[in-house]
Amino acid sequence: MSANDPMVVGIGRSPYSRNSGRTTWAMAVEACRLAVEDSGLRMSDVDGIVEFNTGDSTGSLNVAYGLGLPGLRYPVDIANGGNVVTLAVALAAQAVQTGKCKAVLVYRSLNSRSGKRLGTFTGNLEIGGDDQYGAPHGYMAPGQWFAMFCRRYMHEYGTTYEDLGEVAIVTRGHAVKNDWAIMRDPIDMEQYLASRWIYDPFRLYDCALEADGACAILVTSRERARDLKQTPVQMLDEETFMGRHPDSWEDFGNLFSAHCAPPLWQRTGFTPSDMDFACIYDCFTFTTVGVIEDYGFCGKGESGNYYRSGRATYGGDCVMNPHGGLLSEAYIHGMNHHYEAVLQLRHQAGERQVADAKVALVTAGTGPFGGGLIYARV
Amino acid sequence: MSANDPMVVGIGRSPYSRNSGRTTWAMAVEACRLAVEDSGLRMSDVDGIVEFNTGDSTGSLNVAYGLGLPGLRYPVDIANGGNVVTLAVALAAQAVQTGKCKAVLVYRSLNSRSGKRLGTFTGNLEIGGDDQYGAPHGYMAPGQWFAMFCRRYMHEYGTTYEDLGEVAIVTRGHAVKNDWAIMRDPIDMEQYLASRWIYDPFRLYDCALEADGACAILVTSRERARDLKQTPVQMLDEETFMGRHPDSWEDFGNLFSAHCAPPLWQRTGFTPSDMDFACIYDCFTFTTVGVIEDYGFCGKGESGNYYRSGRATYGGDCVMNPHGGLLSEAYIHGMNHHYEAVLQLRHQAGERQVADAKVALVTAGTGPFGGGLIYARV
Repeated sequence: MSANDPMVVGIGRSPYSRNSGRTTWAMAVEACRLAVEDSGLRMSDVDGIVEFNTGDSTGSLNVAYGLGLPGLRYPVDIANGGNVVTLAVALAAQAVQTGKCKAVLVYRSLNSRSGKRLGTFTGNLEIGGDDQYGAPHGYMAPGQWFAMFCRRYMHEYGTTYEDLGEVAIVTRGHAVKNDWAIMRDPIDMEQYLASRWIYDPFRLYDCALEADGACAILVTSRERARDLKQTPVQMLDEETFMGRHPDSWEDFGNLFSAHCAPPLWQRTGFTPSDMDFACIYDCFTFTTVGVIEDYGFCGKGESGNYYRSGRATYGGDCVMNPHGGLLSEAYIHGMNHHYEAVLQLRHQAGERQVADAKVALVTAGTGPFGGGLIYARV
Repeated sequence: MSANDPMVVGIGRSPYSRNSGRTTWAMAVEACRLAVEDSGLRMSDVDGIVEFNTGDSTGSLNVAYGLGLPGLRYPVDIANGGNVVTLAVALAAQAVQTGKCKAVLVYRSLNSRSGKRLGTFTGNLEIGGDDQYGAPHGYMAPGQWFAMFCRRYMHEYGTTYEDLGEVAIVTRGHAVKNDWAIMRDPIDMEQYLASRWIYDPFRLYDCALEADGACAILVTSRERARDLKQTPVQMLDEETFMGRHPDSWEDFGNLFSAHCAPPLWQRTGFTPSDMDFACIYDCFTFTTVGVIEDYGFCGKGESGNYYRSGRATYGGDCVMNPHGGLLSEAYIHGMNHHYEAVLQLRHQAGERQVADAKVALVTAGTGPFGGGLIYARV
């Protein structure tokens, strides 16, 4: 335990919608301002911002300007997508741990429904570019890439369409009690199976809900957190893994989580049964399946039964995505998972509160590259 | 002094040219591989990469793949340009300091002459985008922005065209002894003043040399550095400042360095006279002028005389850009400044070696936002 241990002390968000009618700048500033107000720190205490975007958001310079900050010592704008959301939090934590910063905001703001949609191809077709081989054959969108990973996974571990459907159904069930969620009508297996194909093996309900909105958290030190407004939530440990090239054959279906889970469990001494809930990056139902199996909540190929038998919800083993996740709350690129984790660990989640929540796993975007971290109420 | 103090133990680069005929991927992999070989670490010791690019390079995922790395725990791809080059090194250092990583590569690879040129407009014209007000009036390229900053600076501090010219001439003089430099023919004031206008107050020789190439450094801990091949170079301290919006009137001519210099000198206990040489980010002659004045090598408005009287070169106060900088060696977005600093501090700079060099200042890209750091031979 150190005075510099990183604590999340504030959270903020703008409304989530399909058409914000606002700039990503305005939404980012709103979410960040609310996170600072929520904490009780002064705006002038903020000396760092970490944000990630894929060319669809507003960078730290303009957001700092919008917040009226006098300056930043740690303006970190990371490229890449949801696979760096836990790394972004870890970079904020690192700056606090080393004494570099007093308080660091982490945000994500996007108009991914009304503005630049994630499925829009903006890849690199140049020689040496990531997309030179795939894109000419129409292999251009995240849904297509994950469909390939998922199909391989189904072949290896026997995961079925119905297994994926269970994830969609249970996750939607959680969103029913979340008035911030965009999709709140319960669905059943019949509706799931009848929903239209996006990219086989993914139907509509397997895919994250592209949305507009912003979400922010504020990280400071244990010492500074002591006399603030909220119960602090400690970022205990984080692990990221970027593995081999996504298109190397042997890695199809081999997710980052196989590499992140063992060191994270080993270093923290926790096991899956210690987790009161988890926020798993569910850009597709499949990523939840692969990740919770790698983390050992159940065995490989067993997620369908894990969800079917009630182990992934209230009264079961571990409540998975109590807010409804990216599938039903909104696709805020995983930052909303951090908002939910902190809200739950502060026991402020209202109707959907996980009883006496103390520890939670939050994971980043999946694929060959991603990360996970553990938050704890202190 | 701690076992985890960050040390640069390896450097590597690809040839610098106007037309590499190669991908940024191939060059990045070459520079990184050479940095690892230079250090004596094994490739498999590398568990982190920090790189920055503006959409013109190859990300850490593909470079790790090209290097044959089994995986990375710290794949940090930062947006923004030369203003984050010292921050990138600081992020690598932080990962070593916190024990997150064993060894972290920092690289920059670009075909900024034969490929995407820096002057090519790729800004954001959307509402809320950085360029919505300026670009429609033709205010679109770095040279134009810095011309405005410089003009204001000339008004405030009396800097003249000839003062800018002295920087170009002395810097070129240094490149004469550097066989890696693209431009090695000495120039004089007559040639400088006769060179064509790019954006008044900038002539051709005021502008960095857009080039193709890659450059990498490798950072590890003091403990791990002990039995490696090279004399380690410690990254002692770093400071970044991102200030108010670049287009807010009161900040024209107010560079980041006014904010970075005082804390950096104060914390390290050094003064400008302790620096044996400095690598100042010289995307334009003006940025060198503004930065060395803010760091206190001379007073405001005195850079012209500082260069004119020989204080910025061998036998003077502090050798500024002994390699010829971005103006004459090549525009490798400031990573080549770090290569040069380490080479000099290892006393391996051959004909252009600064005698008994022990401590050096290296600064990042200028403007409203940038940073500086101090390296020391240990």
